Amino acid sequence: MLRCYITRLLREYQLPPPTPAPRSKSFRSKRSLRGALLRLAKHKRRPCLNPRLPAHKTGALGGTRLRYTTELQERRRARKTQPVVKTDKPRAQPVLLLVGRSTINDTFCGKSGLITMGREEERKGIGWGGMEYASVALSADGKRLRLLDQRVLPQCVEYVEFEPDEVPRAIKLMVVRGAPAIGAAAAYAYALAADRAVRGDAGKFQGEMQRAYEELFASRPTAVNLAWALNRLAAVVRAALDDNVAPEKIAAKLMDEAHVIAHRDIKINQAIGAFGSALLPESCNVLHHCNTGALATVGWGTALGVIRSAHEVRKKSIHVYVDETRPRLQGARLTAWELMACQIPMTLICDNMAAMLMRQGKIDAVLVGADRIAANGDTANKIGTYSAAVVARAHNVPFYVCAPSSTVDLEVLTGEQIPIEERDADEIVRPSGESSVAPEGVRVFNPAFDMTPASFITAIVTENGVIYPPFEDGLRESVRKGHEWLS
Amino acid sequence: MLRCYITRLLREYQLPPPTPAPRSKSFRSKRSLRGALLRLAKHKRRPCLNPRLPAHKTGALGGTRLRYTTELQERRRARKTQPVVKTDKPRAQPVLLLVGRSTINDTFCGKSGLITMGREEERKGIGWGGMEYASVALSADGKRLRLLDQRVLPQCVEYVEFEPDEVPRAIKLMVVRGAPAIGAAAAYAYALAADRAVRGDAGKFQGEMQRAYEELFASRPTAVNLAWALNRLAAVVRAALDDNVAPEKIAAKLMDEAHVIAHRDIKINQAIGAFGSALLPESCNVLHHCNTGALATVGWGTALGVIRSAHEVRKKSIHVYVDETRPRLQGARLTAWELMACQIPMTLICDNMAAMLMRQGKIDAVLVGADRIAANGDTANKIGTYSAAVVARAHNVPFYVCAPSSTVDLEVLTGEQIPIEERDADEIVRPSGESSVAPEGVRVFNPAFDMTPASFITAIVTENGVIYPPFEDGLRESVRKGHEWLS
Repeated sequence: MLRCYITRLLREYQLPPPTPAPRSKSFRSKRSLRGALLRLAKHKRRPCLNPRLPAHKTGALGGTRLRYTTELQERRRARKTQPVVKTDKPRAQPVLLLVGRSTINDTFCGKSGLITMGREEERKGIGWGGMEYASVALSADGKRLRLLDQRVLPQCVEYVEFEPDEVPRAIKLMVVRGAPAIGAAAAYAYALAADRAVRGDAGKFQGEMQRAYEELFASRPTAVNLAWALNRLAAVVRAALDDNVAPEKIAAKLMDEAHVIAHRDIKINQAIGAFGSALLPESCNVLHHCNTGALATVGWGTALGVIRSAHEVRKKSIHVYVDETRPRLQGARLTAWELMACQIPMTLICDNMAAMLMRQGKIDAVLVGADRIAANGDTANKIGTYSAAVVARAHNVPFYVCAPSSTVDLEVLTGEQIPIEERDADEIVRPSGESSVAPEGVRVFNPAFDMTPASFITAIVTENGVIYPPFEDGLRESVRKGHEWLS
Repeated sequence: MLRCYITRLLREYQLPPPTPAPRSKSFRSKRSLRGALLRLAKHKRRPCLNPRLPAHKTGALGGTRLRYTTELQERRRARKTQPVVKTDKPRAQPVLLLVGRSTINDTFCGKSGLITMGREEERKGIGWGGMEYASVALSADGKRLRLLDQRVLPQCVEYVEFEPDEVPRAIKLMVVRGAPAIGAAAAYAYALAADRAVRGDAGKFQGEMQRAYEELFASRPTAVNLAWALNRLAAVVRAALDDNVAPEKIAAKLMDEAHVIAHRDIKINQAIGAFGSALLPESCNVLHHCNTGALATVGWGTALGVIRSAHEVRKKSIHVYVDETRPRLQGARLTAWELMACQIPMTLICDNMAAMLMRQGKIDAVLVGADRIAANGDTANKIGTYSAAVVARAHNVPFYVCAPSSTVDLEVLTGEQIPIEERDADEIVRPSGESSVAPEGVRVFNPAFDMTPASFITAIVTENGVIYPPFEDGLRESVRKGHEWLS
């Protein structure tokens, strides 16, 4: 329609055909990117409207937004003017153009949040697995939270920086998603809120911290890592206040604790990967639901981390069927992108195709993450997980849940007690965030998660080993050992 | 992006802000529509580009395309400038503005294909159930096939007229879809091809008919109604040629036969509805997959016809969970639209949510149609049907297949022999036909259908009654009786 509109406008004004639209610049070397970033930094940018999202979902978010095109987009444009050569192979591997560790570190920002501000020994341990991006990090000045905007991937690679009080909204809008990543984001936001409260009225410190806690806590109800991380930090505040520690020191302690949570997440995920990948055959096809990779965590990933460990560490011949994961399409948008970047063979399918593949014997295992695991092993995870578990059971395909012990909530005895978040109808009726596919005013049911009973789960893989049913004792033991990782 | 582009253009040319874009006119009374249609008819229109579909999918299709906005769209526009009042009820029932029976019949076209050209007794039997549209009909002059373009519903209600040799492409592109509707469309196209061949070289008649048969036969491989209808008509041609009947008379016979196939389809569906609705409890929630309504047939519908019979005829209290049906979203686009028009209570869900609802005891039965039923009861239907059958079995929910006996293919002994069509990757990566959600070059598996083994099916409902397992004898008997409907 808009295209017609332009044509009409030009005719109306009796104008010549327009010159081509300006293209975003893309960079093929770090040096040219560095120069451009320095120039960008001089002009503070307003957040720009993402064409794939309605204005009310992006417009009001604060922060500096940097936008680059990827080499991939440039190639696509180039292809439009060139004849297409068809091959059997996937036509292009995405070459990620990202604000990676070294670039941020050396030039643009002076120092980056997660990397430079971490301890030296932690730095060495961080393996980004060849993918130079961080879903959760601090801004260069250490005063804001920098999130990789997962709503606009894979078309755009954009980092957005948030003031601590904006973070609950960012979590709600799914700028950052994935239980472990949300946990780390909340921890940083809470620590940053302390840092800000210190600079304010000293008497209001405790009240400010309580407010930050409550806002963050309420941002998403199902994933427990958020509550887990916040409770760890709140305990630090309580203990310090009891000992009359000065607020400045409390803020520093909180930031240390947030760093620990974030940095250890990667090591924990690699441990999950090591245990989980041992369960897979030397050559296998696995089904993966939602996104559980480096984007859903601080790095490496949980279920997708198992796949990466099998591929990169154990050198198994693995092929992944990626559930697109309606309604938010995390599989199509994020998991496909991560797997293609890691050059792990994959095929994208719709969620309702997995049963047919299992019947044909084409799937050897199902790997999923978790948002909350009850004491008995019942698992809340992205909607569609239960459906995958039922069809896996019907075809005798093993079903593995891969998650850190921080996802286990021993206070919740069974899955029936886990709150299930319901989200906006737009997620279903506007699949790509553009025009609606359904009739106006249609009634929609959109639960974000479902609960898979323990009886459908073959094993739960945590950083402390593989737990088989009955899960109760194993989960309790894993939670106990989980605390040791962070001490 | 285009919005930015317009702004940039205007700035570049130093122009004032543009006047608002012209809006399509909508009509609230039949009288005003009639006048507008008469004016439209004077100017032969080129097919216009649909904004939701890439150019290559619509541009090359011939025929006259009429476009109207619905009252619904007008209301939506009006609402943009008015405060939104939220109610618990669905906000708007779509008021269909369609080229219905009487309008076409009386004014615009003089006479419409399906209605006026049918026999008088058939006319009386046609119950559109209050929904005045025909998915398949002849054009006013009886020389072309008029299809309701199902790719642009529910946003636009558009009829496109096709020359007989364009129909295979229209079927392939899913302008018309649903096994019974495809069967009727192919029958009309074959009869029209005969009408055209008669006017050409008499010696080429047999060759032309063979070419038409092959092109139509190859247009979609899975649904058997297409082959069934074509074979009925081809048998007429063979018998007539053997008796040295003149081509003109053969063409007339074929058109008669096509009318019989189309007109009886509605009666057959109402019989399916009567048998099927008896199986449902007085108050129930059913799950429905894909679209099997008046759009997928010549009228009334198969599985959706059962729902309509339960609601309109038996006055049962029925609520429908509508699977959106990835990848083509027939549930969200077509079934939701039909149910809302019939004022049958419904809730749209993603395909992967049904298992969760069944676990909560919220679904009492699953109703699906069929594209081909093998002699043993194995059923090929829209992708996702098997997945729904597996989760239904796991939760002891009855699973009913509703289809006319023309969908039964006794020559295919088991479902393994049914060819499964694979379609374009774009259907998955561009959910609403707009921008891609997945990374460029992603590998995709997109089967259009799957096969549900007979062991997962509680009963098959045909126009000749309900068949319970083992299905072999019942299906054979039903096919035998099915021929009587058409004699």
